[in-house]
Amino acid sequence: MRRAVELAALGLGSTSPNPVVGCVIIDASGQTVGEGHHQRAGGPHAEVHALRAAGEQARGATALVTLEPCNHTGRTGPCAQALIDAGIARVVYAVGDPNPAATGGAQRLRTAGVDVESGLFEAEAAVGNAAWLTSVRLGRPHITWKYAASLDGRIAAADGSSRWITSAEARADVHRLRAECDAVVVGSGTQRADDPHLAVRGIEGAVQPLRVVVDTNGTAVAPGARVLDDAAPTLVAVAENVTPEAETEAETVRLPRADGGLDIPALLGELHARGVRSVLLEGGPTLAGAFVAAGAVDRVVAYLAPVLLGAGPAALAGGGITTITEALRLDVSETVRIGPDLRVTATPVALVSKEH
Amino acid sequence: MRRAVELAALGLGSTSPNPVVGCVIIDASGQTVGEGHHQRAGGPHAEVHALRAAGEQARGATALVTLEPCNHTGRTGPCAQALIDAGIARVVYAVGDPNPAATGGAQRLRTAGVDVESGLFEAEAAVGNAAWLTSVRLGRPHITWKYAASLDGRIAAADGSSRWITSAEARADVHRLRAECDAVVVGSGTQRADDPHLAVRGIEGAVQPLRVVVDTNGTAVAPGARVLDDAAPTLVAVAENVTPEAETEAETVRLPRADGGLDIPALLGELHARGVRSVLLEGGPTLAGAFVAAGAVDRVVAYLAPVLLGAGPAALAGGGITTITEALRLDVSETVRIGPDLRVTATPVALVSKEH
Repeated sequence: MRRAVELAALGLGSTSPNPVVGCVIIDASGQTVGEGHHQRAGGPHAEVHALRAAGEQARGATALVTLEPCNHTGRTGPCAQALIDAGIARVVYAVGDPNPAATGGAQRLRTAGVDVESGLFEAEAAVGNAAWLTSVRLGRPHITWKYAASLDGRIAAADGSSRWITSAEARADVHRLRAECDAVVVGSGTQRADDPHLAVRGIEGAVQPLRVVVDTNGTAVAPGARVLDDAAPTLVAVAENVTPEAETEAETVRLPRADGGLDIPALLGELHARGVRSVLLEGGPTLAGAFVAAGAVDRVVAYLAPVLLGAGPAALAGGGITTITEALRLDVSETVRIGPDLRVTATPVALVSKEH
Repeated sequence: MRRAVELAALGLGSTSPNPVVGCVIIDASGQTVGEGHHQRAGGPHAEVHALRAAGEQARGATALVTLEPCNHTGRTGPCAQALIDAGIARVVYAVGDPNPAATGGAQRLRTAGVDVESGLFEAEAAVGNAAWLTSVRLGRPHITWKYAASLDGRIAAADGSSRWITSAEARADVHRLRAECDAVVVGSGTQRADDPHLAVRGIEGAVQPLRVVVDTNGTAVAPGARVLDDAAPTLVAVAENVTPEAETEAETVRLPRADGGLDIPALLGELHARGVRSVLLEGGPTLAGAFVAAGAVDRVVAYLAPVLLGAGPAALAGGGITTITEALRLDVSETVRIGPDLRVTATPVALVSKEH
């Protein structure tokens, strides 16, 4: 199953709105006779790839799958039936399918006399599918808030200068994060201060994310802005009664206001409806605060540079936390050095217990 | 020599104002015949301990010492002469003695026909003696700024509450830092907000540091304050024209003002004159900013809790940095998990290159 989880991860960034899935088929002697992973939405599921590789050796074999085999006919047929037809004797899956449209695969397998077990490497497989599982369970994309700050938590110096707090290595690493997500979101402050490009660079074969600028008052995206080039699609979100100041070719969506900005759940609903299952929030302190206040941060990736500034904007502003007992507590899942910087990955504690 | 560096470290926190020193004596066959370290100021030096252990076997042997053997007669005789008298044939030391009163040991050894080498494990030995080397070279104590903050760099929530951002494990670790330093320094803000105790707890045999409160206007140390108990000595530093509001039994020192607080070099000179070679700065953002502005931070130890606050005071305020090119750049020497928290240890880049 560990191998199946590895295979599943190969699909990160290109299967959305589908989950990543890996499948390994082993024969009675424990030999691997077929491997497969879901490569892109609309393409064959992991089980089908693995069954094709196994051929006749699938008969009487065991299939190890990271997600409960689906029971629905979408652009491809139900995997549960494919496993039955191939003569698979035993199916072990890691995570049950929470998708109401696709669940029931385990039941169909059992009815056909297949031996079914679940829960093996469940936590590991769930981490790989965190975005998809969150989107199915909550009906909104999974959100990773990424920020780059000094060791004392500032994203720019007193005069606003911020190029560069973190190293070239850390900035390159962000492109990997972007490539794994369906959309990258910034606010009007970041749009104005940095004129960011937000597309993925330097990663071969990467699927470009949707670039989203939350420009509540329609004043931040100027003609010639770098997000308006054709490197990736771009969506500008403005308040419902707003017409963007500048005429640009970017697609615009109008959304309700809330608390001085856009309504975050409405924004996330809109993105979800567009097939976005994972969001990389690269916004500044204000937008990040709005996401925290909306309970819409599922993972934090902090790039901390070994630098002290002593003045300048903090990484997070607002968020509605007024006293220590209300602090958003996280669980650190990883700390690594990226060049001279540290990358800290953490998950809100409440979400951790919900997911495992 | 690696063993000698380990031996030296055993003296951390109890040898001040002397350096930590370790010594290993090996015979012609490479066997260790004596070990020693400097245990406390006024007690025998490392070489003397090692020579006593080696006895007659010191004759013709090699002494590996972390610091150049001293050439002066203080409370103990010169080690260089002791090595000569014992018949040591060869001395290898890691770091040359920068202390003008004690240097010349290598020369005395050579004159007596002893074979002398230096520089082996110099960097490793220098790290162990960072406090003492800094104090000899700069004429002020070595300063470690320790702070505990949220991942977004805040030391308290919006309402000032801060108990507890970091874990019990991290707070216990701070006592180890205190035990290794000669003095612990806080400012009036921390004194008022936290009423800290500042003594070492939970470490057997620890030498208590001098507790120093920088109380410029003499208004922060109230009768009954926890720093006034008899767990450790306490010094209250006030501006030269100030009489502390409250009558307490704490010793008071008057120092010049600068930039709205006390003059940091004057404070450090006063502490140095009292034999303080290492300071743990546990002050809040304002005092830390004054130390940064004075170029008086030699090491940073940040305890970062996986917590987001979004509001509340930052770890560092002021420091005189206005633009990104003026940022105080550090070199991370260690990142470890302490319970759920991260401890990041870093050294200003300029000091790194100065010391190595």
